[in-house]
Amino acid sequence: MFRPEIKVLDCTIRDGGLMNNWQFDDNFVKNIYNACVASGVDYMEIGYKSSEKAYSRKENGPWKFCDEKDLRKIVGDNKTSLKLSAMADIGRIEADDIAPKSESVIDMIRVASYVNQVDKAIWLAEHCMDKGYEATINIMAVSTAMESELDEALNDLSKSKVPIIYLVDSFGSMYCEQVELLAKKYHKYLPGKTIGIHAHNNMQLAFSNTITGIIEHCNFLDATFLGIGRGAGNCPIEILMSFLKNPKYDLRPILDVIQKQLIPLQKTIDWGYYIPYMISGAMNQHPRASLKWMSSDKKENLVEFYSMIVDQKDHLD
Amino acid sequence: MFRPEIKVLDCTIRDGGLMNNWQFDDNFVKNIYNACVASGVDYMEIGYKSSEKAYSRKENGPWKFCDEKDLRKIVGDNKTSLKLSAMADIGRIEADDIAPKSESVIDMIRVASYVNQVDKAIWLAEHCMDKGYEATINIMAVSTAMESELDEALNDLSKSKVPIIYLVDSFGSMYCEQVELLAKKYHKYLPGKTIGIHAHNNMQLAFSNTITGIIEHCNFLDATFLGIGRGAGNCPIEILMSFLKNPKYDLRPILDVIQKQLIPLQKTIDWGYYIPYMISGAMNQHPRASLKWMSSDKKENLVEFYSMIVDQKDHLD
Repeated sequence: MFRPEIKVLDCTIRDGGLMNNWQFDDNFVKNIYNACVASGVDYMEIGYKSSEKAYSRKENGPWKFCDEKDLRKIVGDNKTSLKLSAMADIGRIEADDIAPKSESVIDMIRVASYVNQVDKAIWLAEHCMDKGYEATINIMAVSTAMESELDEALNDLSKSKVPIIYLVDSFGSMYCEQVELLAKKYHKYLPGKTIGIHAHNNMQLAFSNTITGIIEHCNFLDATFLGIGRGAGNCPIEILMSFLKNPKYDLRPILDVIQKQLIPLQKTIDWGYYIPYMISGAMNQHPRASLKWMSSDKKENLVEFYSMIVDQKDHLD
Repeated sequence: MFRPEIKVLDCTIRDGGLMNNWQFDDNFVKNIYNACVASGVDYMEIGYKSSEKAYSRKENGPWKFCDEKDLRKIVGDNKTSLKLSAMADIGRIEADDIAPKSESVIDMIRVASYVNQVDKAIWLAEHCMDKGYEATINIMAVSTAMESELDEALNDLSKSKVPIIYLVDSFGSMYCEQVELLAKKYHKYLPGKTIGIHAHNNMQLAFSNTITGIIEHCNFLDATFLGIGRGAGNCPIEILMSFLKNPKYDLRPILDVIQKQLIPLQKTIDWGYYIPYMISGAMNQHPRASLKWMSSDKKENLVEFYSMIVDQKDHLD
């Protein structure tokens, strides 16, 4: 029996773009879009909405900015059942840079926020809602937040108009028990709101933690093609789709693009299960150090990486 | 806080050997053995105990047979804290081929049994115990067994002397809820016995299902270096060790062998996350079809494999 409230959100381009500075060619993005439409995916997050004052066009591809003309090259007027979302980082976008919904093919803005930025996030998300968009707030890095700070942030969110709040395992460090506890906490503080889950796969737990989220009544589920995403990547959409029972979902268009585009791409970008990413997840650390290691000539020296991370930990007190 | 009853069993050579007919060179096996000793692993399953009447030496390497002289080439008299195990398949070994424990470096025989073979398995496992070995029975393919048959098998096992019974997810088809239900059932039917868990990784759930096993009081945990094993492979021992809190475990010797031996080996053997294995797991099928597909020239045609599997399903009634 399926739960009709469940929405699958593909963030292949947005989170995958963290690994190639959003330098996907139009054909790649178009194929992901077409597969999302054909397979019944509910939302596709096509990139970040960022200001050119914050990031350079030289270093970053179009999906770091999501200009309307670039979007329309891919989706036209998007006369499909697939909704489009873009992510906004606090401080990297001016409110004035966001056009009224009537001028955009974007349907939803997801505001990414650290626990201590929640007031700014609420302001920005409500501003987007006032302009006609759906909005979410995705609270990042909660695995390193103090519980009292998180409680205060959730309390603030409960008073906001924002209807969808995401539980995010930014470091891929959570086990099922932590997802369960946090999902229960989010529901307790945020009655009437929808909870989403965005998991990272450092310890091969992204799909499993998403299932725990489903059991705990999370209804917005993030996933990506072949799990592409920063470092270890995200919940693979092809496994999630195999699990969900809603007959509207069709795995074939996704498998087709994985075969033709993602598997070849994986030969050039190191996302997925690599031991340095696993270690940073198990140690509840930002993937910064493991990403740096993976792009160095020491990439294959696992013991040295482990020792470096453990020794850092030992020397903190 | 760690649970001292938990034992980690490495089955790298035994389950990994299903992918190369146990053609590991002595140096490889010796390095796995040394790493298991140095890292505090509790048991190492070094292969199958099989009869040469059942399998040919031409096709299968020494770890399909586990002759005493081959074992001693690797482990000497094994004067370490690591215990050694070998697996026996019903009907592939004569009871008389099993030497008394006093003549062997093997400490434990694990009898692999389908639900309908449990009476034979009990006979063989008790025979091994009478000869001085520790023994387990690993009930395979329970995801396709009728519940009433499984209940009867568990009832028979409850009356046996065999102290350790394994919950095995042979097809990598189980989700956390099924592991939880089955572990509870095994404990209910088998009071006083130890329950183990052996998970396959088709849907990236082997580690997660092993955690669920731990939560449900399973104390024997199977895992392999870099998850090597049939098809998608097993629970990766390096993630499991990162999770377990027993201070006797040390990840470094394992990482060292992964770096030097497993990562190079993975370039020649297709174990791990591949979509055909994922599909066979999600469809609760024996990995036979996906293994065959992966060794064919159609390996990369994912949509065709999916269609074949789905169409088989559709035509069963």
